[in-house]
Amino acid sequence: MSLGFSEIIGGVTAPLGFTAAATCCGVKEQSNAAADLALVASSVPAVAAATFTTNKIKAAPVRVSASHVRSGETRAIIINSGNANACTGSTGIQHAKRMAHVVAREGRWKERQVLVCSTGRIGIPLPIERIEGAIPTLVSGLETNQGAAFARAIMTTDTFAKEIAIEMSIAGAKVRVGGAAKGAGMIDPSMATMLCVITTDAVIQKGTLQKLFSVSIEQSFNCITIDGDMSTNDTAICLANGMAGNPPLRLEQEESAYFASGLDYITRNLARMIVEDGEGASKFVELQVKGAATYQDARKAAEAVANSQLVKSSWYGEDPNWGRIIGAIGYSSAKVQEEMIDIFFNGVVAVEHGVASSTPPHKIKEVLANKKFTVTIDLHLGSAEYKVFTTDLTPEYVRLNMGE
Amino acid sequence: MSLGFSEIIGGVTAPLGFTAAATCCGVKEQSNAAADLALVASSVPAVAAATFTTNKIKAAPVRVSASHVRSGETRAIIINSGNANACTGSTGIQHAKRMAHVVAREGRWKERQVLVCSTGRIGIPLPIERIEGAIPTLVSGLETNQGAAFARAIMTTDTFAKEIAIEMSIAGAKVRVGGAAKGAGMIDPSMATMLCVITTDAVIQKGTLQKLFSVSIEQSFNCITIDGDMSTNDTAICLANGMAGNPPLRLEQEESAYFASGLDYITRNLARMIVEDGEGASKFVELQVKGAATYQDARKAAEAVANSQLVKSSWYGEDPNWGRIIGAIGYSSAKVQEEMIDIFFNGVVAVEHGVASSTPPHKIKEVLANKKFTVTIDLHLGSAEYKVFTTDLTPEYVRLNMGE
Repeated sequence: MSLGFSEIIGGVTAPLGFTAAATCCGVKEQSNAAADLALVASSVPAVAAATFTTNKIKAAPVRVSASHVRSGETRAIIINSGNANACTGSTGIQHAKRMAHVVAREGRWKERQVLVCSTGRIGIPLPIERIEGAIPTLVSGLETNQGAAFARAIMTTDTFAKEIAIEMSIAGAKVRVGGAAKGAGMIDPSMATMLCVITTDAVIQKGTLQKLFSVSIEQSFNCITIDGDMSTNDTAICLANGMAGNPPLRLEQEESAYFASGLDYITRNLARMIVEDGEGASKFVELQVKGAATYQDARKAAEAVANSQLVKSSWYGEDPNWGRIIGAIGYSSAKVQEEMIDIFFNGVVAVEHGVASSTPPHKIKEVLANKKFTVTIDLHLGSAEYKVFTTDLTPEYVRLNMGE
Repeated sequence: MSLGFSEIIGGVTAPLGFTAAATCCGVKEQSNAAADLALVASSVPAVAAATFTTNKIKAAPVRVSASHVRSGETRAIIINSGNANACTGSTGIQHAKRMAHVVAREGRWKERQVLVCSTGRIGIPLPIERIEGAIPTLVSGLETNQGAAFARAIMTTDTFAKEIAIEMSIAGAKVRVGGAAKGAGMIDPSMATMLCVITTDAVIQKGTLQKLFSVSIEQSFNCITIDGDMSTNDTAICLANGMAGNPPLRLEQEESAYFASGLDYITRNLARMIVEDGEGASKFVELQVKGAATYQDARKAAEAVANSQLVKSSWYGEDPNWGRIIGAIGYSSAKVQEEMIDIFFNGVVAVEHGVASSTPPHKIKEVLANKKFTVTIDLHLGSAEYKVFTTDLTPEYVRLNMGE
């Protein structure tokens, strides 16, 4: 068994048996005719694992998909961008079911075999007729070379499409994992305004897939934050159709750990792309809190710093204002002791024992001039740690989010 | 007993026996020679009530003042702006004590009778010699007409000085309450990067004053938020020197409730001024959550909305994007039921039963064009409510906070 794997092209259509299609049906009412409807399908029934938003206000497609995903024989996922179909009441639920129904009719599947996702503005009824009208062409247009088109069609304010795929060898069988995601604003730990579709041709049971996928999401999409906001629509789905023919993956096996490492590679890279494409962001920051008394302490401290408007503004200004970092650590509910705290930027010590180090300030300013840098906070109270990927806060963020 | 009271001039020096002074000693190293050292003193010992930051990282002056305030016979408060004397280790503590010591020496008071506050950048040692050198002039310059100069000298990024005073009549005696505050960025419930000094000539015991002051702070400074950040230096102090000669105020008395209403008038107005002067803010928003199951639910929902970068950016754009408001309510830990939520802008209904109301969107846009407006969220799950004053998020906020 090889321990490595290689990146391949194709995104969600890289694994055997998966096809995709995308079109513009007019949900995004702009003149530039951007694609706003996407479909991915499997030629055989697939088991599905899923994670949905923890926001108490859940969009209609989230509620419908959470029900449909239990079927155990998913065939397709339809996604529209430009309208979230959230806060749309019972009409919204009908619209989400209608999308699944028409896809199922056209593909000759069952309604419960189709999952539905929406992303975009909240509170406006879906233009359901336009979507319904475009579905027949979409289903008949399913092709194995449409992975990239799929990734583009699910974008909202994203500036680049996010997709990735790998091939690995499990007990002699070639297994592929592909993925596409959309991100931009409203990104926070505990999911995000984030849609992510992962496909694989691995042979794996639904329960096993759900366990591996949940861990993978926790260590990827749940460790990124742009603005601390969490959406009503966040959805991550993983379909496994078994066409690779590998021996079934079982938990506690070496092969399953290997498969998990491939899955993690996909989710972490997609999560990283989402942060790199954070709305208006000019800096990409890998923030680690270590030496915490507990994992929860490490996480709370990291999230307080990563979501502080003042800290994020200073990063935009390339100003190593560690006072704001220490202030945020202090108001987080994490256990801290001022005189124990060390802070590093790209490994250069800025704070030692809670006070300014002897490093000349211009040395630290040099680090912040980079587009990417790390911030490491050592609380020296234990051995727990937590890492989060985040961005700066820029005037451009506000401009991008000030209107429709 | 009159139930009203009238505003008077004089700020912290309006009450009998209080004098103030301000000077520029070079803590703020700018060329414009802005005042950065301020002193307020009472001609007789005063009882003091105080509330300090709940940040676990506390600045040196906070720790020194928290100790000195117990004396029960405070004579003066010295405040420097431009440097927070926070994260400065044992040197910082020595510097804060040194400030109190030199003021006490010059005023012929005891060191414990002097309180110390600092506000400004974190992590840089105080230029203590400059401060010490300026104290003799400061003490000898104490005058009853220097209230406004005091309010100006404690400013950092504030764009206007914040002061107010009232006169009330208690059992035939004229009683005055005056106050000054500084705010700007780093403003969040549970205090703020906020300094506030209140003076009164009322006769009142220390314990009684502390009780009334704590309630007053909870209902004013703890109900405002600009950026969700909470500083290491937040301090609110109330001095009462008893020179008005009123019968001592006791809890549960009508007179004490009347005095409390005057105190609340002062703290609420100062809190409102702080929000109106929020860094880079262009909108002033009074946000109320009502119909919550519990007070904590109302508070959590209000704070989630008031601190959402996405919501605040949409207010800047005058875009009635209530979907983001409902999203923030949903990810707060408050108990909510989507189909019960109503949302109003200046009383105009935008959301009814969790979905868009029939109000034409342009009607709601008109409300957001105002510099000040209210947002009312009715959860329809109980009778608890919470109100918070907040601002929008603007490109200017980021620019103001991007560097030194």
